Amino acid sequence: MSRHLEIEIERLNKRILTMGEAVVEAIQKALRALQERRAELAREVMEGDRRIDSAEVEVEEECLKLLALYQPVAEDLRFIAAVMKINSDMERMGDEAANIAGHALFLAGQDPIPVPPRLKDLSEAAMRMVRESLAAFVKGDAEASRRICAEDDEADQYNREVINSVWKMMSAEPQTVERATHLFSVSRHLERIADHATNIAEDVVYMVEGKIIRHGAGLSPPKPEAS
Amino acid sequence: MSRHLEIEIERLNKRILTMGEAVVEAIQKALRALQERRAELAREVMEGDRRIDSAEVEVEEECLKLLALYQPVAEDLRFIAAVMKINSDMERMGDEAANIAGHALFLAGQDPIPVPPRLKDLSEAAMRMVRESLAAFVKGDAEASRRICAEDDEADQYNREVINSVWKMMSAEPQTVERATHLFSVSRHLERIADHATNIAEDVVYMVEGKIIRHGAGLSPPKPEAS
Repeated sequence: MSRHLEIEIERLNKRILTMGEAVVEAIQKALRALQERRAELAREVMEGDRRIDSAEVEVEEECLKLLALYQPVAEDLRFIAAVMKINSDMERMGDEAANIAGHALFLAGQDPIPVPPRLKDLSEAAMRMVRESLAAFVKGDAEASRRICAEDDEADQYNREVINSVWKMMSAEPQTVERATHLFSVSRHLERIADHATNIAEDVVYMVEGKIIRHGAGLSPPKPEAS
Repeated sequence: MSRHLEIEIERLNKRILTMGEAVVEAIQKALRALQERRAELAREVMEGDRRIDSAEVEVEEECLKLLALYQPVAEDLRFIAAVMKINSDMERMGDEAANIAGHALFLAGQDPIPVPPRLKDLSEAAMRMVRESLAAFVKGDAEASRRICAEDDEADQYNREVINSVWKMMSAEPQTVERATHLFSVSRHLERIADHATNIAEDVVYMVEGKIIRHGAGLSPPKPEAS
């Protein structure tokens, strides 16, 4: 690898990590705004999303510049291709955080309604998956990435349970319907965050092994080749 | 451009179009399954999604192969980079169609509930945006793409109106809550399809003009340069 490309790739790596930290913080703040009914915190997340949006465009321009300038091959090419996709997933996670903040903002101005306990479990599972997928990217850890893909089923299950609780509440107390649909949406956004973390984990496997494992293909680690 | 790359790019173009047609058909069928309460049609869409998933992986592998093999620059590089993103958006539209089909399947087995009239408007707007974004890709039409980005507001507005109608129905008739939340989800999936069509239109502008217009930046056409 040319020394120049090496430096550029290191810079790209740092940018993605900075963006990852901003996204993790946005999700955490949005959840705190929901839990503590804090409108100002919700607004902060919604406004901060513009920074994540700009970061995404910059990273993508950077990737395209590197592709055009250095015409990288093999693992460098895979790294840049993976970064382009991870970048896009991170930006969408930022959008989901801003959406959650929007619901938190609405709910902060209303009479409180009970939050289904499973929503907390879902929040924790989604946050864990985001953190783990970023860590797997940093370490280039394909094995950890495969574990993250498996965790997504847990998040889906929690989401279904939240939706069931919300249905029950809406049926039993029709006056909660509007507020409850906001909880319903929060749950969906969390589930989508978990999906994006799964996408990132899949891209890490591709980056490390050069193998596309989306849609359940190749979820088992590769067999050692016969020598 | 090398003759080989030219042939490969033409093939890639055809693959994306075939995939686009499959996605349009999946969305149409899912909406028909919902409207006509046809479980078998819904199942067809859900099963067919695997083919779209495989097509996505193949197109991505093809793009990476072309990047590694031909190390394209300028407009060829932009074309391939745009195809990688459009490919991913099309696959996600296929997922949304399968999700709509899942809700149609559930609702087909229940007593009917009234479907908000705006859901039809939203369906039509989303389908139009998908078709127009594919046509803009084929023609490399940046101007049409900018119009599609503007249409997304209309889809968002319809989605909000559907959600309001669904809220009213749930509040007035609590026994509809479970079925109504499925309509709520269908509306969200349609809105997301419109978002993906917008993403595709943005990628077409990038492909044609080399300019990233995401997040509302650069939505006006470029000014003619002073000569």
